[in-house]
Amino acid sequence: MNYLGNHLLVELYDCNTNLINNVSKLELLLLEAVKISGANTLNSTFHKFSPHGVSGVVVISESHFSIHTWPEYGYCALDIFTCGHEIKSHLALEYLRKELKAGTISVTEVKRGILDFPVKLLHKPEVSSI
Amino acid sequence: MNYLGNHLLVELYDCNTNLINNVSKLELLLLEAVKISGANTLNSTFHKFSPHGVSGVVVISESHFSIHTWPEYGYCALDIFTCGHEIKSHLALEYLRKELKAGTISVTEVKRGILDFPVKLLHKPEVSSI
Repeated sequence: MNYLGNHLLVELYDCNTNLINNVSKLELLLLEAVKISGANTLNSTFHKFSPHGVSGVVVISESHFSIHTWPEYGYCALDIFTCGHEIKSHLALEYLRKELKAGTISVTEVKRGILDFPVKLLHKPEVSSI
Repeated sequence: MNYLGNHLLVELYDCNTNLINNVSKLELLLLEAVKISGANTLNSTFHKFSPHGVSGVVVISESHFSIHTWPEYGYCALDIFTCGHEIKSHLALEYLRKELKAGTISVTEVKRGILDFPVKLLHKPEVSSI
């Protein structure tokens, strides 16, 4: 099966509520998780909501990492969407699971861009100036 | 079933290849799609890759819209992740499908943050300054 992207949809329950309400800490954790996976950060944008909750996205050369948190429920929705077969998404996931102290986790892995022709697939190349 | 987020994973095949390689046009289309859905844009970040391909994310008060394109295959991976029951994700999807002139489409709808207690769920509140 030829596919272009690998997308982990991760449900993290029973997380540390203070931690998942800390926007600067979450940004550092996601940026570190990107490094651990071997992916390359292009840009990141994080927001703190009032009275609680954080949304953040790291755009990477290989697609994106995102997180949305509901501290009031101890819950985070994490997405790790990568292309290329060299990126170690599961290492990033394991790191974040531990750092966020998730008690319960569920992961759905989805292949994106399934192509039905037998070509050697090209993935995202380098960034150009725009 | 109580859930916090609704996530559409959309595969758009046979799109207009010039269009899905046009970073400024894609950003405009995604921002317009956010408006059509009734969601609120917080920030957006888009990148053009060399020699082709675009990645872009719009962070919204209600989670995010993202797109990753492979013009060489006529393919886009679109994600529409929203919280709250007022957002009309399907209107945004229909708009983007038409604008990108997708020939073939598949949509997977995933409920995120399924909670097993019978509470009235709170969704993302307003943004605070950070």
